[in-house]
Amino acid sequence: MKLCRYGYEGQEKVGLIDGNGAIRDLSGHVEKLDGQALASGVLERLSAIDPDILPLVEGKPRFGAPVEGISKFICIGLNYSDHAAEAGLQVPESPIIFLKAPSAICGPNDDTIQPRGSTKLDWEVELAVVIGREACDIPEGEAPDYIAGYCVANDVSERAFQMSSGQWDKGKGCDTFGPLGPWLVTPDEIDDPQALDLWLDVNGKRMQTGNSRTMVFGINRLVSECSRYMTLKPGDVIATGTPPGVGMGIKPDPVWLKPGDVVDLGVSGLGSQRQTVVARR
Amino acid sequence: MKLCRYGYEGQEKVGLIDGNGAIRDLSGHVEKLDGQALASGVLERLSAIDPDILPLVEGKPRFGAPVEGISKFICIGLNYSDHAAEAGLQVPESPIIFLKAPSAICGPNDDTIQPRGSTKLDWEVELAVVIGREACDIPEGEAPDYIAGYCVANDVSERAFQMSSGQWDKGKGCDTFGPLGPWLVTPDEIDDPQALDLWLDVNGKRMQTGNSRTMVFGINRLVSECSRYMTLKPGDVIATGTPPGVGMGIKPDPVWLKPGDVVDLGVSGLGSQRQTVVARR
Repeated sequence: MKLCRYGYEGQEKVGLIDGNGAIRDLSGHVEKLDGQALASGVLERLSAIDPDILPLVEGKPRFGAPVEGISKFICIGLNYSDHAAEAGLQVPESPIIFLKAPSAICGPNDDTIQPRGSTKLDWEVELAVVIGREACDIPEGEAPDYIAGYCVANDVSERAFQMSSGQWDKGKGCDTFGPLGPWLVTPDEIDDPQALDLWLDVNGKRMQTGNSRTMVFGINRLVSECSRYMTLKPGDVIATGTPPGVGMGIKPDPVWLKPGDVVDLGVSGLGSQRQTVVARR
Repeated sequence: MKLCRYGYEGQEKVGLIDGNGAIRDLSGHVEKLDGQALASGVLERLSAIDPDILPLVEGKPRFGAPVEGISKFICIGLNYSDHAAEAGLQVPESPIIFLKAPSAICGPNDDTIQPRGSTKLDWEVELAVVIGREACDIPEGEAPDYIAGYCVANDVSERAFQMSSGQWDKGKGCDTFGPLGPWLVTPDEIDDPQALDLWLDVNGKRMQTGNSRTMVFGINRLVSECSRYMTLKPGDVIATGTPPGVGMGIKPDPVWLKPGDVVDLGVSGLGSQRQTVVARR
């Protein structure tokens, strides 16, 4: 099942992507797709509905993030060995965990706003996991029971802010730095989440290419590890790290995003995003 | 005005602390003290009520965090010059910003749960600012307009987790690592927020003593600075750093908390907290 939230910001309705890629209106069946809904079995309930009986949504509405009310947006640093190499950093011995401000979350195709003072705006395509049940210090083997689904994320980063103090959160949590979606894809649709292609283009040129099989720490380990340091709530998101090809790593000179640039990115089976960079008004 | 949320976890009612230090029930006037309430002028409305007409609350109920639904718990690192010295670190050139997981938030007197694997559990008394209006890239001079009030915070930290990867969030966001309260104290009650005493005792022995006048970056600068990197939402909390005397800094050997230890802490005018350390069950 592929679920989405579509419509103007703050007025999104819940929808389902049918076999033809069209949006079907689920608002007669569910009002909100948030952590509480995920925890109370909404996915099971929705999966029993025949998509053909749902109203077809006309046009090309905006997508919001596929889940609302996300309380924690956890990110994993340097989780692809070749990305660590391009950043000039060692592969970590245990997962590097940091947090993105929830106020950074936006729809998958919303503009990326370059903040005032930004000089090193960068991209990071990632496979994100959405938590479906409260998870506190769970073993790796049970992690799949706590995963509601997957989505695409762009861990947009301002490298000058990120590196200015040693603590990365400053350069990770700016408004619009967390596009999520277009869809929440349930695990039954994904044969192997550790075998998904990731890609990202800037102005039509391929910059990132990777596959989730080269993660240093796999998805189940990450869910287990994060749950050890903080109770994961339904709707919480874990972005599992980025493959090589970020702007910071380009030789001989890094490449930074500027207003007018267009970023396309995707993960196989999870859909794609497109952001246009704009200056802060 | 001193506001509180009192009662069992998840069932707190809003209360007011009267001139005698007793709790008055405000639940007939306001259902929730959250960001939305703060943004819609609840403080002004409540300040017009004569405390004497409010029902007196009997007994000694538990306090919850004084604001609910906090979306961001921002912390500032090394913001007292003498604390930076004891940590063996330089005073930062600009504020170090990191995030505490909202799932860490608890009441001011709730037990501190030592997580599995914890060996270096530490304390940090802090003056916390609660945001009352959405703030995006605001100048320092306007910061007071965005502050709903102040409260005591303990930035409970697990130093082994914190220092294991370079990114501190892992050792800052464990469950119960963010006691807030007992009260939200409105700015009119505080003559000068940069002249407040902070103190913390462990098992009755004074460990931290400080005053907010020795902050490296003052409160208005911090609100302005944080608002530059992420839009502050009503109800968001900024913990403004800790004065000297944390366990990590004690010579010749650091001191760590263990189950059974009792931590008392407070800030002048903002009340006090007491936590007992317990092992994770």
